[in-house]
Amino acid sequence: MISFKNDYSEGAHPDILKAITENNAFQEEGYGLDRHTKAFHENLKKRIGSEDFDVHLISGGTQTNLLVISSFLRPHEACIAADSGHISTHETGAIEATGHKVVTIPSRDGKLAPEMIKPVLVYHHFEHMVKPKLVYISNTTEVGTVYSVKEMEALSRFCREQGLILYVDGARLGAAMTSGEGAPTLKDMARYADAFFIGGTKNGALFGEALVIVNHDLKEEFRFLVKQRGALLAKGWVTGIQFRELFKDNLYFDLAGHANEMAQYLAEGLKTLGCPFLVDSPSNQIFPILPDKVIEKLLEEFQFYIWEKAEKGFSAVRLITSWATEKTSVDLFLSRCRELLQKS
Amino acid sequence: MISFKNDYSEGAHPDILKAITENNAFQEEGYGLDRHTKAFHENLKKRIGSEDFDVHLISGGTQTNLLVISSFLRPHEACIAADSGHISTHETGAIEATGHKVVTIPSRDGKLAPEMIKPVLVYHHFEHMVKPKLVYISNTTEVGTVYSVKEMEALSRFCREQGLILYVDGARLGAAMTSGEGAPTLKDMARYADAFFIGGTKNGALFGEALVIVNHDLKEEFRFLVKQRGALLAKGWVTGIQFRELFKDNLYFDLAGHANEMAQYLAEGLKTLGCPFLVDSPSNQIFPILPDKVIEKLLEEFQFYIWEKAEKGFSAVRLITSWATEKTSVDLFLSRCRELLQKS
Amino acid sequence: MISFKNDYSEGAHPDILKAITENNAFQEEGYGLDRHTKAFHENLKKRIGSEDFDVHLISGGTQTNLLVISSFLRPHEACIAADSGHISTHETGAIEATGHKVVTIPSRDGKLAPEMIKPVLVYHHFEHMVKPKLVYISNTTEVGTVYSVKEMEALSRFCREQGLILYVDGARLGAAMTSGEGAPTLKDMARYADAFFIGGTKNGALFGEALVIVNHDLKEEFRFLVKQRGALLAKGWVTGIQFRELFKDNLYFDLAGHANEMAQYLAEGLKTLGCPFLVDSPSNQIFPILPDKVIEKLLEEFQFYIWEKAEKGFSAVRLITSWATEKTSVDLFLSRCRELLQKS
Amino acid sequence: MISFKNDYSEGAHPDILKAITENNAFQEEGYGLDRHTKAFHENLKKRIGSEDFDVHLISGGTQTNLLVISSFLRPHEACIAADSGHISTHETGAIEATGHKVVTIPSRDGKLAPEMIKPVLVYHHFEHMVKPKLVYISNTTEVGTVYSVKEMEALSRFCREQGLILYVDGARLGAAMTSGEGAPTLKDMARYADAFFIGGTKNGALFGEALVIVNHDLKEEFRFLVKQRGALLAKGWVTGIQFRELFKDNLYFDLAGHANEMAQYLAEGLKTLGCPFLVDSPSNQIFPILPDKVIEKLLEEFQFYIWEKAEKGFSAVRLITSWATEKTSVDLFLSRCRELLQKS
Repeated sequence: MISFKNDYSEGAHPDILKAITENNAFQEEGYGLDRHTKAFHENLKKRIGSEDFDVHLISGGTQTNLLVISSFLRPHEACIAADSGHISTHETGAIEATGHKVVTIPSRDGKLAPEMIKPVLVYHHFEHMVKPKLVYISNTTEVGTVYSVKEMEALSRFCREQGLILYVDGARLGAAMTSGEGAPTLKDMARYADAFFIGGTKNGALFGEALVIVNHDLKEEFRFLVKQRGALLAKGWVTGIQFRELFKDNLYFDLAGHANEMAQYLAEGLKTLGCPFLVDSPSNQIFPILPDKVIEKLLEEFQFYIWEKAEKGFSAVRLITSWATEKTSVDLFLSRCRELLQKS
Repeated sequence: MISFKNDYSEGAHPDILKAITENNAFQEEGYGLDRHTKAFHENLKKRIGSEDFDVHLISGGTQTNLLVISSFLRPHEACIAADSGHISTHETGAIEATGHKVVTIPSRDGKLAPEMIKPVLVYHHFEHMVKPKLVYISNTTEVGTVYSVKEMEALSRFCREQGLILYVDGARLGAAMTSGEGAPTLKDMARYADAFFIGGTKNGALFGEALVIVNHDLKEEFRFLVKQRGALLAKGWVTGIQFRELFKDNLYFDLAGHANEMAQYLAEGLKTLGCPFLVDSPSNQIFPILPDKVIEKLLEEFQFYIWEKAEKGFSAVRLITSWATEKTSVDLFLSRCRELLQKS
Repeated sequence: MISFKNDYSEGAHPDILKAITENNAFQEEGYGLDRHTKAFHENLKKRIGSEDFDVHLISGGTQTNLLVISSFLRPHEACIAADSGHISTHETGAIEATGHKVVTIPSRDGKLAPEMIKPVLVYHHFEHMVKPKLVYISNTTEVGTVYSVKEMEALSRFCREQGLILYVDGARLGAAMTSGEGAPTLKDMARYADAFFIGGTKNGALFGEALVIVNHDLKEEFRFLVKQRGALLAKGWVTGIQFRELFKDNLYFDLAGHANEMAQYLAEGLKTLGCPFLVDSPSNQIFPILPDKVIEKLLEEFQFYIWEKAEKGFSAVRLITSWATEKTSVDLFLSRCRELLQKS
Repeated sequence: MISFKNDYSEGAHPDILKAITENNAFQEEGYGLDRHTKAFHENLKKRIGSEDFDVHLISGGTQTNLLVISSFLRPHEACIAADSGHISTHETGAIEATGHKVVTIPSRDGKLAPEMIKPVLVYHHFEHMVKPKLVYISNTTEVGTVYSVKEMEALSRFCREQGLILYVDGARLGAAMTSGEGAPTLKDMARYADAFFIGGTKNGALFGEALVIVNHDLKEEFRFLVKQRGALLAKGWVTGIQFRELFKDNLYFDLAGHANEMAQYLAEGLKTLGCPFLVDSPSNQIFPILPDKVIEKLLEEFQFYIWEKAEKGFSAVRLITSWATEKTSVDLFLSRCRELLQKS
């Protein structure tokens, strides 16, 4: 059954498996001190146009988030996130488990802006309340929307004025960077964020997120913290070589661009069929609203999540495409939709 | 340069890479609910001869240890470990970071026995002290020694009498299970431990440890805890397929047996040359004592760790072999030793 | 300047100071194992009509809350609270600092009811989210409202059906128990809550909260946890004797009743002057809405907090009375209000 | 029965109770912002000869220790303590519960010196191990010994060279400061420690420890942390007035001096009777070695702890005197010893 449930159903891009296989027998240094991780770091320096950042390869997003936030904050400091933020709801309290409150802000499109954060800072005004210190955003967001360069710049300026750390969950950063006009580049991310990660798991790697720490104050002794949270893989080269391969040429961007293209092709098709959308998302996650009866039928042939109830008899669903989604699968879905919508 | 530094320098056994590559394109369920993880679970049931255990695949040993211990203990409860235990010294306080004290017991051979634990229980007698509740052992230990079935059985009986949880760090469980007469089997492990893990990283996998929870009371809602600690990989099938492959036939045991064989062959060779040993270890870690001048020369051609100073002018070194160690490498090392020792 | 800012401005009831002074020279057992704490425990057994509970004396409310919640929950479990709950906003993330998320529910009157909790349980449906396990309520609430016996009973039944722990922050339990018809008694509290505390700090003690644990499963080894959180006072008898004195006769109820009476007398007076109220609270906290100009003038002579903006030119203020509030102070405030309101 | 078990059996010095009683009715600012706490702070400034420190009043020693250590350290940093240190053994893992390892150093007299700490720093050399960052000492120590000014100075110089924080548990700081020649003064403590506390509980207060933070970097936003750990008492003035009274004239030093005098008088008496001592302690804790049979008889009339077994048939006991110990009690104990030793 074809799945549009998520972008981590398939494995890695074949080039990655090939690279692992070819380097498999070599006796490599452990714990991320290998040749591949170093080569990826060098490559990033060129792409970002700076020497002045650290990179740490972590196996997954939740682990990266809890590691980063618990390392950057003092015990009484809290993070601010959209209520749809991954750390707010879908990480089983991972951040709180390290001792820190997540202060949430309601956001329909999953994004935060300075004017939304200001009241939170005003409200938390004395020592009987936590001190908000870190702003967590996801780019793309959990509903597929994108922070443009302009929005990143505005948030960054605001955070620096307020003494706030800006941290970006980039589980789908590839999708954000290839989402079209105004999309941020790696250089932009490094300019505006204090730290961010480049998601591998959801963009063609077997696993792995590349955490980039730009703010000098946050770098110190970070490897201790990686080890303490159980995030320092012995065979770290396996993560390193995946990112080396993704960024050797343009693979990372090509894969993300393909996923976006498939989702937008799907969205266009659904719009042609008259579907409204819950939110306007230019990346690889789309949220069309369909009649419940149509959804029921579609679920017999395709896998995807029902996102939330819409007006009577309708629901929004989430459709996600990946680096591996084939155009024939999308065409099949669209053609089935057409039939079902005509009947309904 | 040939390395005897550790057993995680090389990648995965080729069969594993082949299996990943062949299954790479399939759209698999996420988070460890895939076909391969299930197949491995079924396989383990047969090997262990019981249906009554849970299995969770985790990416590394430190992560497994901190996850297990923080999940099993109440806040005031502590774990007991040998002072050479991995959690005692080489996990950057990962256990304490989850809130629990590690009470250490000096042990020359890295092993614990009931009579060593008893005084710790007597000493911690009231509410101004932590309550020791979990006994952590490693099999093989950090110095290559092995808990035999008999020793496992004695520890287990003692722990059950005392209301203690027995947890086994099996990063090198393969080496223990193939260490010869008296070695425990998987069935023994499941009979005597409340929980243990089967190490993949150090025995032919790219990464991965298979945590087996036998004690029914410790199983409940464990997936919440795996997720909270950032240990639930989205593409969990990549870990699942590695263990499936390792246990499809006898690969796991063959690889561990080979590593042991190489180390013992190396040990025999060194004994023939008159080397004494720091500890008598029947597995893939050996600790010969060599003249410092010889060590210095050897390090020009081979990688390995100096473990500790011995009598004047001598030091113990640690030599580790892996599933991938070739006999020719061992022969080369032995022949170089022979030359250098004759000169010295 | 007369203060209606809170109910902890003055010290202890004179009988308490007298009792401390009279017993001061005696060499008492440390850490809560003294004669006075035991006598209070015996007294409580009679009042509650049961032998089957533990009592622990803690120095303050935040400490009690963090101790209780961190002791009762496993790492992935969360507590549910009203958004106005003390743990939600005014304890500097004390609960999160012990590792647990506080899931908040909007509540205008500061209370929770089963139908408000149900959707939270439905929403948290799988292991990628925390598991709500404990319901935290305050009686009286942070806005002076009271859970009646009937409401306590309904919440309790719901929690038991759902496997939830019901824990009551009783910083102002005295005010709740003396709030008139339908008010719960100590017996009711012990029948419906799994644990609750009897507030001393805000009802005539120098400091101290008496934590009562009724649910047998939650009692075990609790003194270890009290010690670990730094809550076991060496001279625990000083807390013990205060509670002994408060409950020797009816002092605790008399003091709370007086505070309520003063607040209600103040409320009646303000109602006569035509003041509306933010919320209808039958206890020692009231929230009248006054013109901002009047508030400004009043603040020159009295201390109290502005609670929140109301309609244009008006604000709600919080007025709190205590066991020590004198009627003449209330009369003075009312008379000043009358003058100012007439002018405005 | 007369007790030499500890120095917190009796209550507060009568002057303290009088001061509380006299100020009891006043409506005081809450949470340590009261007149008495401020007056004590001013007093301390004069005694220390500096304006440049913060003071926070906490209810007990364990709470102070866990608050300080968890606030000063990053997650991967550890503290170093003597194995007899209070945090090492008698605080139920309170430090570990906040996430930090306590690295212990064996010490017969309970003291640490630079040469004892150096190897610990050498041993913890990379990111797979915790980073020792704070040195915890107690003055007096848990066995009654005293760090002299000279020793404080040496430790302080060493810690500053090594980038270590020096923190002093002063539960019995009064006893240290009045222990005779070479004893440190408050000025010395503030000069050599980064932070220390002045114990009230064990020197004439009902409860309370005055934490002094000297190192500027460690002061910031500390009140948030005090609140978060549940250590900010609503009626903070009750602690404030106790310290105000203790330091108004010389009461604090007089009380500690008396306790020391009684213990030394007791020690002299026992030496005259031929008793050896476990350790030579010039403060209010002494550890004479007595025949087990004599101990058994003494315990019928006096309370004290047996500390540890000595040579066959003998044990060391711990005898503690307090600000309230009467000379007649000591004489009684000595006279009973004389009788029993003569018989034995």
